Amino acid sequence: MLRSDPEGRLEDRLNARPHLITLADPLQLQSGAVLPDVQIACQSYGHLNEAQDNAVLVLHGLTSDQHAAGASSGPARKPGWWNAAIGPGKAIDTDRYFVIVPNVLGGAGGTTSPAAQNPSTGRPYGLSFPVITLADMAKMHAALLDALGIEQLHATIGGCLGGFQVLEMLAACPARTGKSVIISATARTSAHNTALWAVLRAALMSDPNWRGGDYYNGPGPSAGLGLLAMTGALFWMSRETLERRFGIAPVSGVPRYTMEPDFAVEQFLNSVKENASKGRLDANSLIYLTRAIDYFDLARDAGSLQLALKGVQNPVLLVSYASDWRYPVEEMAEIAKALPENVPHQHLTLESTMGHGAFLYEFESLRPALSEFLR
Amino acid sequence: MLRSDPEGRLEDRLNARPHLITLADPLQLQSGAVLPDVQIACQSYGHLNEAQDNAVLVLHGLTSDQHAAGASSGPARKPGWWNAAIGPGKAIDTDRYFVIVPNVLGGAGGTTSPAAQNPSTGRPYGLSFPVITLADMAKMHAALLDALGIEQLHATIGGCLGGFQVLEMLAACPARTGKSVIISATARTSAHNTALWAVLRAALMSDPNWRGGDYYNGPGPSAGLGLLAMTGALFWMSRETLERRFGIAPVSGVPRYTMEPDFAVEQFLNSVKENASKGRLDANSLIYLTRAIDYFDLARDAGSLQLALKGVQNPVLLVSYASDWRYPVEEMAEIAKALPENVPHQHLTLESTMGHGAFLYEFESLRPALSEFLR
Repeated sequence: MLRSDPEGRLEDRLNARPHLITLADPLQLQSGAVLPDVQIACQSYGHLNEAQDNAVLVLHGLTSDQHAAGASSGPARKPGWWNAAIGPGKAIDTDRYFVIVPNVLGGAGGTTSPAAQNPSTGRPYGLSFPVITLADMAKMHAALLDALGIEQLHATIGGCLGGFQVLEMLAACPARTGKSVIISATARTSAHNTALWAVLRAALMSDPNWRGGDYYNGPGPSAGLGLLAMTGALFWMSRETLERRFGIAPVSGVPRYTMEPDFAVEQFLNSVKENASKGRLDANSLIYLTRAIDYFDLARDAGSLQLALKGVQNPVLLVSYASDWRYPVEEMAEIAKALPENVPHQHLTLESTMGHGAFLYEFESLRPALSEFLR
Repeated sequence: MLRSDPEGRLEDRLNARPHLITLADPLQLQSGAVLPDVQIACQSYGHLNEAQDNAVLVLHGLTSDQHAAGASSGPARKPGWWNAAIGPGKAIDTDRYFVIVPNVLGGAGGTTSPAAQNPSTGRPYGLSFPVITLADMAKMHAALLDALGIEQLHATIGGCLGGFQVLEMLAACPARTGKSVIISATARTSAHNTALWAVLRAALMSDPNWRGGDYYNGPGPSAGLGLLAMTGALFWMSRETLERRFGIAPVSGVPRYTMEPDFAVEQFLNSVKENASKGRLDANSLIYLTRAIDYFDLARDAGSLQLALKGVQNPVLLVSYASDWRYPVEEMAEIAKALPENVPHQHLTLESTMGHGAFLYEFESLRPALSEFLR
């Protein structure tokens, strides 16, 4: 079932391979809608061993994609978002494990999303794409494993949106996930999150180039993406981080009393805006992924968190960052508490000034525990 | 010099009077620019006594105006923003004090602002309005007192942007301010604030109807104002407040898996957006007032906070709310520490779930201390 992209080539010593997998069966969604012709864009690193028991599934966060490691793959020629973690001899050791990173359902990396062609119209879905959920994403990952012929994973790892998906897999197919690593996550969204996503979606939709989601033949809502990224930056970074990094002194030392950028934090936000406007983010993808998070509540779907996690068998590593105020340590502790009693688990709380993004930008503190846990 | 607006009438038993004061001299701004023909829109409550020593100056926050008390004054027919505090027998007792509330320089209530006519073009200033600072606002208040013939105030009171202005008056004309009350404020802005204002200004400017600030003959950037208000709401309310108030359950009990509002917090933000789009906020005014805050740093202007406050003579009441993470208790404590040793002062920290807006929405806890302090 695994068909290599003909363009696929050995990118570097990581042996990164892009794959485009087409699911044989339509995907039945939690909403009741059915998604036909689901394609999954993946990247893999390392080699599947003969026993087929060394596969590690890595699930990416909201603004990432399947290009998790490697210097320059894909049209964007960007470094992998988790180069620090994935590679030969690294914590997720590609000499040892076969690492698979699928682009999430609804994602902007080539997996079926609002940018895909709606078979009933022959045009991109746009807002006619059905609302998807975290459970749908987990279901897609299970179908991907079927397609790859992998019965059981050695481990399943995810941070943020990826962590939510690991939890949904623990609820839906706990025997397949192997060891699981859940980073900077929670078992349910928050009203604050829902509010934030509403604001970010409103920023996108305020761009006239968004055109009700039907921007595929036009310039696209780059200004809306810029505004979204600026606003997001205010939440990813804590007040303390901003103070320490930028301060309040005018850049030239003396105030110029101007509407032009006169402070370092303004220049930073302008570059965030600029990069997002030109980057690989996709407006409709962000709209659907954030909407999926709005509906994320593992306890609601199963009756209780205990019931949702009752099938978990393998060891679980939970990782919180003390400064991650949007996904607080206490909510992760509730997951630990809800695991079946006999499941070995560890809840690690790390210090970092980077808050929610710490697992990406300050991987070093997580390395020893992750490396040890995966062996 | 005090000219009553001919439309002025006794609105209610508060005896609220609107005034429009024109300053005789141009206002020399901190930037070096000069603002001619400055008009100040005020409202007053109560009566100035013969000794002229019972005047209390109340300075409003970012999104308020001179209509601080009274049920229905002005074209917006909205209740006063500090009705809880100002009135006969209330903490700021209009049977006892002559309460003056000027609309801030650059404000949307009729004081000279970007909406005023630029005498050199005969058209509204828009972005040709000079950048103003907190020190400029304090200078305008001093000129207002001159125009009213009031040598010394009984008290000067302000929260948030109003609190910054009280501090600037303590630096510029400490002998005139009388007792001073500084609520939910700081002696300098923060990088987080500057970032937030940059994002909110970008939201306004993203509206095509903003038209580079020249929207006075068009429909105006109502969508941008809506987006600004939605984003702002995420900062005025803490994560905990949002959780407690809205939760994460879908409004109908079961998820509808829709892009339409399905959660209480979405409905709330939509109403915030709707109200702001139709309300009395003015885009250019917010742009200039937030820009003024970007330049606010009492220590920078004077050399140090101690030097800025060295002339303070009269008692000072500082009020913090423990949940106000944007203007933390520690920053207010620095003001207390910087006051001259012989100045009687009190730093009150109150509990509230309302954070920064607590002095407006939960006035009760502040009432006894404020009432006592003013006597």
